[in-house]
Amino acid sequence: MTRASVVGVGMTEFGVHEKRLAELFADAAFPAFDDAGITGDDVDAFYFGNAMSGLSENDTHLAPKIATHIGIPGVPCQRYEDACATSSNAFKNAVEAVEAGVHDVVLVGGVERCTPETGLDTPEMTRVFASASHREYEQPTGLTFPGVFALLTKRHMHEHGTTEEQLAEVAVKNHYHGSLNPRAHFGKETTVEEVLDGPVVADPFRLMDCCPFSDGASAAIVVSDDLADSYSDPVDVTGVGHGTDCVPISDKEQLSATQAARDAADEAYSQAGVSADEVDFVEVHDCFTGAEVLATEALGLFEDGEGGEAAAEGRTRVDGEVPVNPSGGLKAKGHPIGATGTAQITELVEQIRGEAGERQLDDAEVGLAHNLGGDSATTIVSVMEARA
Amino acid sequence: MTRASVVGVGMTEFGVHEKRLAELFADAAFPAFDDAGITGDDVDAFYFGNAMSGLSENDTHLAPKIATHIGIPGVPCQRYEDACATSSNAFKNAVEAVEAGVHDVVLVGGVERCTPETGLDTPEMTRVFASASHREYEQPTGLTFPGVFALLTKRHMHEHGTTEEQLAEVAVKNHYHGSLNPRAHFGKETTVEEVLDGPVVADPFRLMDCCPFSDGASAAIVVSDDLADSYSDPVDVTGVGHGTDCVPISDKEQLSATQAARDAADEAYSQAGVSADEVDFVEVHDCFTGAEVLATEALGLFEDGEGGEAAAEGRTRVDGEVPVNPSGGLKAKGHPIGATGTAQITELVEQIRGEAGERQLDDAEVGLAHNLGGDSATTIVSVMEARA
Repeated sequence: MTRASVVGVGMTEFGVHEKRLAELFADAAFPAFDDAGITGDDVDAFYFGNAMSGLSENDTHLAPKIATHIGIPGVPCQRYEDACATSSNAFKNAVEAVEAGVHDVVLVGGVERCTPETGLDTPEMTRVFASASHREYEQPTGLTFPGVFALLTKRHMHEHGTTEEQLAEVAVKNHYHGSLNPRAHFGKETTVEEVLDGPVVADPFRLMDCCPFSDGASAAIVVSDDLADSYSDPVDVTGVGHGTDCVPISDKEQLSATQAARDAADEAYSQAGVSADEVDFVEVHDCFTGAEVLATEALGLFEDGEGGEAAAEGRTRVDGEVPVNPSGGLKAKGHPIGATGTAQITELVEQIRGEAGERQLDDAEVGLAHNLGGDSATTIVSVMEARA
Repeated sequence: MTRASVVGVGMTEFGVHEKRLAELFADAAFPAFDDAGITGDDVDAFYFGNAMSGLSENDTHLAPKIATHIGIPGVPCQRYEDACATSSNAFKNAVEAVEAGVHDVVLVGGVERCTPETGLDTPEMTRVFASASHREYEQPTGLTFPGVFALLTKRHMHEHGTTEEQLAEVAVKNHYHGSLNPRAHFGKETTVEEVLDGPVVADPFRLMDCCPFSDGASAAIVVSDDLADSYSDPVDVTGVGHGTDCVPISDKEQLSATQAARDAADEAYSQAGVSADEVDFVEVHDCFTGAEVLATEALGLFEDGEGGEAAAEGRTRVDGEVPVNPSGGLKAKGHPIGATGTAQITELVEQIRGEAGERQLDDAEVGLAHNLGGDSATTIVSVMEARA
């Protein structure tokens, strides 16, 4: 069932940007307006995602500031923060709003700066990111996010025999995909040997298992199903599922099978009336290579324990049976936290429309985005399909 | 028209709390569950407000953390941040969600710690709050929020002849109301002389013109209209308006007539089918005495320029023609930022039910809450009425 349609998308290159947050977001929003064939005057509401700019740039109440900057100062604005799932949660709420008839045409998007352009170096930014781990039970131990996902992945290795080589294959694939994407933070390829030779960040992750800190912005124009046909190239949102799990990690029932992703996927598949084997391609939240393995299993693309092997066999490459992260994913495209969710939506739209350039997939009728926040306790899964 | 109903409310005392955020929020959520006659198992979704805890306590992704702590770990969670209008925006979105049938029973609320219990002293917390002013155009000038509202109020004094004595009368009234409210941060009365003798914070505001930094939490259970009659004491939400204005202040068309509040009030009155003179009492966002004067005019309770005189004449006291801030308002009840919006909703519910103790109003059938964020660029106005 169509819940809403996306009729325009835009995103900046992900990488290092000198521009301030509002200017950076404008570089995503204006292309999204142009893509939809609208102006700011047509926008009813603004569902905005930003995760960390209070901490990193002393900048809050950003939604009306940015609305003013991009010329839509009177529309109702709300900022969402759900760690790395921030702009997907804004997207979910926007879909609900147009579906309910609360708004007709909604601007959704996110922006973040995570590089030293903020004035914070990597250790300082790592501390900022760690604000999403549990304040009382995890932060005092020094647990930062490479460690969080290392714990989940180590458990997967223990239970299923997943190997460091298989994890490295995820990095190699996503760097290859990123090399086809002109907006990717990393445009260069890598090799299994290079990944395995890198310095350990948090065992089993080496440097190249980890996504970068990026600056960037992304935006989408969401309209109700009834209005979609009056736009030139709508792509339908047929399912959006939202799963939540316990925080801290020690409260989770299991570590290697992220429950929130399973719940979110079940909900999204059920709404869309599609099964995992009907999905042509996916964008998943590969903040670390191990996270991609866990995600492909949680989404039902592979049996539990087979995600690593599937990656090593090339089944998730752009030319494989289920392309995973054709954009390059967080690993190579980059990860400006609050912008990541709607950047995944942007990739889905461009692939489904056949506008993805060198990385265009042959078969891209049904796409899925998986975006998680924190230790995966928040996960949003969205299914999008070519309009019938 | 009834859009949704509130069937349970809870709040902590506002003041200084040693408890951590999740524990503090639990002290509002559990009383709200009890008041509604539900348990956490009955809750479908969590719309959560917190403004500054990333900056003040290095704590983000709070919604699932708090959901876990209060025993509702599986429900979809979203955090809103819209400066001081944070939990009102969560409330608006919750009302829309139950009205649309997306959820049946929603927990809405907010929590914040703003006192030295966070580890930050008053100058440091003032900088944290200032993150909501414009990052590029206002923060570099040293403008903090006493200065922001001083600018708006000075303009009102210039245009309308509003006096410092009239502003002081707002503080005297709200302290009197607060003295009747056992959950108020300040339980003591004051006098015009005491206010005018205080040290200047930002001309025309003296110390007693300013609300305190408080710790606290508040929560409400929102259900759809069709479900409301199965609860023991529902209060209806008949209108929720959301106005947005430009940021920075220099972009605003006028300073003394807060446009976002006017837009939000128009929308809320129109939805509710009530006019300003049908409102029995209001809770307004009196972060500074001048802000209350501007709010009462923006809501149409008094003609432009007459808000100060009305306060001085006692027309806004609990025994006046339009009681304003019977709770004591931000000025005396306190202002834990992300908790303020749903604390206003709590006061509306308790007054309308006749459960407001010593401060109970004789006539409290129709109540209105006005909650602003930043320099008033975000304003949410909610109208609530006794269920017919």
